[in-house]
Amino acid sequence: MTMTDKLQATYDKLCNHAREVALLTSTQSLLGWDERTKLPPAGGDYRAQQMSYLAGVIHKKQTAPEVGEWLAELADSSLAADPHSEAGADIVNLRRDYDRKTKLPQALVEEIAKLSVLGQQLWVEARKANDFPRFRPLLERMVELKRQEAAAIGYDKEPYDALLDEYEPGAKTADVACALAGLREQLVPLVAEIAASERRPKLSVLKRGFPIDLQEKFGRHATESIGFDFKSGRLDVTDHPFCGGAGPHDVRLTTRYDEDFLPGALFSTLHEAGHGIYEQGLPADRYGLPTGEAVSLGIHESQSRMWENFVGRSWPFWEHFYPQAQATFRDALGTVPLDDFYFAINDVRPSLIRTESDEVTYNLHILIRFELELALVNDQLQVADLPAAWNAKYREYLGIESPTDSDGVLQDVHWSGGAIGYFPTYSLGNLYAAQLFEAAARNLGDLNALFRRGEFLSLRDWLRKHIHTQGRRYPAAELAHRVTGVPLSHDALLRHLRGKFGPLYGLAI
Amino acid sequence: MTMTDKLQATYDKLCNHAREVALLTSTQSLLGWDERTKLPPAGGDYRAQQMSYLAGVIHKKQTAPEVGEWLAELADSSLAADPHSEAGADIVNLRRDYDRKTKLPQALVEEIAKLSVLGQQLWVEARKANDFPRFRPLLERMVELKRQEAAAIGYDKEPYDALLDEYEPGAKTADVACALAGLREQLVPLVAEIAASERRPKLSVLKRGFPIDLQEKFGRHATESIGFDFKSGRLDVTDHPFCGGAGPHDVRLTTRYDEDFLPGALFSTLHEAGHGIYEQGLPADRYGLPTGEAVSLGIHESQSRMWENFVGRSWPFWEHFYPQAQATFRDALGTVPLDDFYFAINDVRPSLIRTESDEVTYNLHILIRFELELALVNDQLQVADLPAAWNAKYREYLGIESPTDSDGVLQDVHWSGGAIGYFPTYSLGNLYAAQLFEAAARNLGDLNALFRRGEFLSLRDWLRKHIHTQGRRYPAAELAHRVTGVPLSHDALLRHLRGKFGPLYGLAI
Repeated sequence: MTMTDKLQATYDKLCNHAREVALLTSTQSLLGWDERTKLPPAGGDYRAQQMSYLAGVIHKKQTAPEVGEWLAELADSSLAADPHSEAGADIVNLRRDYDRKTKLPQALVEEIAKLSVLGQQLWVEARKANDFPRFRPLLERMVELKRQEAAAIGYDKEPYDALLDEYEPGAKTADVACALAGLREQLVPLVAEIAASERRPKLSVLKRGFPIDLQEKFGRHATESIGFDFKSGRLDVTDHPFCGGAGPHDVRLTTRYDEDFLPGALFSTLHEAGHGIYEQGLPADRYGLPTGEAVSLGIHESQSRMWENFVGRSWPFWEHFYPQAQATFRDALGTVPLDDFYFAINDVRPSLIRTESDEVTYNLHILIRFELELALVNDQLQVADLPAAWNAKYREYLGIESPTDSDGVLQDVHWSGGAIGYFPTYSLGNLYAAQLFEAAARNLGDLNALFRRGEFLSLRDWLRKHIHTQGRRYPAAELAHRVTGVPLSHDALLRHLRGKFGPLYGLAI
Repeated sequence: MTMTDKLQATYDKLCNHAREVALLTSTQSLLGWDERTKLPPAGGDYRAQQMSYLAGVIHKKQTAPEVGEWLAELADSSLAADPHSEAGADIVNLRRDYDRKTKLPQALVEEIAKLSVLGQQLWVEARKANDFPRFRPLLERMVELKRQEAAAIGYDKEPYDALLDEYEPGAKTADVACALAGLREQLVPLVAEIAASERRPKLSVLKRGFPIDLQEKFGRHATESIGFDFKSGRLDVTDHPFCGGAGPHDVRLTTRYDEDFLPGALFSTLHEAGHGIYEQGLPADRYGLPTGEAVSLGIHESQSRMWENFVGRSWPFWEHFYPQAQATFRDALGTVPLDDFYFAINDVRPSLIRTESDEVTYNLHILIRFELELALVNDQLQVADLPAAWNAKYREYLGIESPTDSDGVLQDVHWSGGAIGYFPTYSLGNLYAAQLFEAAARNLGDLNALFRRGEFLSLRDWLRKHIHTQGRRYPAAELAHRVTGVPLSHDALLRHLRGKFGPLYGLAI
């Protein structure tokens, strides 16, 4: 056996192992999807046991010592020489994933897992009772454990780097902070200008009877039109919409219908379809390998935000779809002019709840969370002072304040489960979406003209070529830079927001 | 540690192991349910990989050498002394299951598994092309391998015993053959009498528009009325109805709707609900252990047949439900008298296809398959002669003959997948159902009066107490004997059929 043959054999073993792990993680994913869409009410306890057991089996397999040996053999080999080649990208990323999993002491992993379960229960209770002090000791311990996690993983400058890296591999706190600070500087005055505008949409046009079966039919049609493939996917109902799936040709969107409000289900369906189109565009023959996986949560979110906001809430999208919407929801929309409908689905106003916020203010919700969790990790803010800091920032950035912690610092589940470093990926998604959308327009010409004709597959195929099929060949920031020609920045997003909402709200240019 | 403590510790390890296996088998079961009800069309290949991988993981765990060591330690211990005690039944049955799995040489297991996959594909093609000779070599090899399987498992008298035992643990060919032969002797003339009767139901009353959403609503209501618990279960649509599930409180019925024919979905739903009610009645806290498992396919089928036929096709059932059915399906049934409806759902006539046959002729379809597969295994019949033997028996028992092998010897999937020894459990189900129904009537008084009032839970609870909660404490035949007071025989079923169909068809008593 030559040296090259031997390396290839080791790489093959590594790939087979990763594909075996994927058979288990995709099964785990089905258990999760089923839990959230189909599981009978009494089945929850046993499902938790199944998922926890399988998680153990998966973890053991992922951290098997032979994987470390294979990776060590391949590390400086010719196969890994080009980190952007298929084999090179697989090896580099499997190494990174393996290191993250094996660097953490078992005791720490278990304590975080236990505290997460406890934390989510306690969070539900504390939120219900508007009782932050009840939640506080647990969150303090969680922050402490996440600092230990960061120390175990290791980092150059910021402990937060090590946490952020879990969701956005390769991203640096400094870069993210810089882009988000730039965004904040221009977003805060933009939001204030809009809040001061006298123009207001008639929201009542969206709050009337939209029969659920018709909503489903219309949502499915729109989803199919933008390029989600139902031969390899599904759309179901759940409480908190997500995009799941259980294999390379099995991508599952979920949504939630409100009979008296159209946008809820419609835009969440388009959002999840954006995630789903990304998943469907990954190279199926590399499923389970890094070159067949999504690169980061930020890029994932860029896809969902693009289809939800840049496309789904755009004027040309509705030039195409509004006649169909009027025909479908004749009673509700038959006499509503497109202008009124368009303005209503693009209502912007400072509000308390992140998940219900609009395209413009959304990023300020994220900024607040990012700045606060960064300060917590850096010990510049104590958990005891978190509610006051939260409220101060809402006053400063959005000009509002929550009368309760339930609608304030307790509103999100993330921290209770130890997801610190997750929030910024939402805004990274918006930043990347804006940059990619501009690049697509440079490549494809007038996107508005395409959308007006109901032609969305050009954009999907452009994304497929430049983003989806790339898997994890390049780290997220590098991938986006290569495709757009510019580094991460707030410029494109601000151009988009000013360009869209300036005219709508009659703002000075 | 005392001897007793040590035994108890070993038994606990054995139980924990069995419960871990159940976490995996129930996950496998969800993969299967999902495949048949929800999986996107393009997801099939990957699902097959997931299921095959998990099957390997499960098999390895089930046949782990330490299980054999624990079982050896417990075999003649005080814990196993009473095979009907909780621990005793667990040990005896786990021993039996372990032996079946470990006695087979790996090469044989793999060849049968491969041949099954191939066989099912080839069967589909051969059936479509009405080409038995194309299927013949594979079936010859399968019979040969099943003989090898029987030899590896071991048996006292008949190799068929070893195959039957897989589906009906503890059952003996001689007993089954005796009961079925007794049944045949009286059933053949009964079917001939009915075929000769001039009375015929108007089948057209069932072949009209029954909107599917109303069928679902009505089926769900009836299913709930007989005691299936939707908090611990579901009802979905599939191609070939089955009862699945993924945990002790997660039992999933499936059905298939035909807009122009009511009984198809309705009785298949009641049938699957019978299986589901059994599953829901097993001791949830013993899930994964023999004392928490169904005892045999025959007893399982007795539950489905009882609710489908003995209850669901009975006169008092429809005295209760028919007014609701008429209100639900006003266009189709509004002017149809109950007598006509009742006669139509109890139409009996010799026909070619087992799965579409009625309560009376069904057992003759089974008898034919049982007699033929027994002869094959005993080398008293060659596969080459199977079509002719099949046709001869259909002529003799049912007075009809199939013009094609597709509707004859090729109609069932079972043999192509190596399921030899499975067919008789269908008729065992009917025999046990009749015996249990008589015993229930002796215990509960006038069942007809209960049903007429819509009171079905007394019967369910009686079955729960005497059958469901027993798990595998007693082998099927012993359990039925204990509950009914009589050994397996055809008497009760014949009484039921004569008692019900004699009057309907105006037969001499």
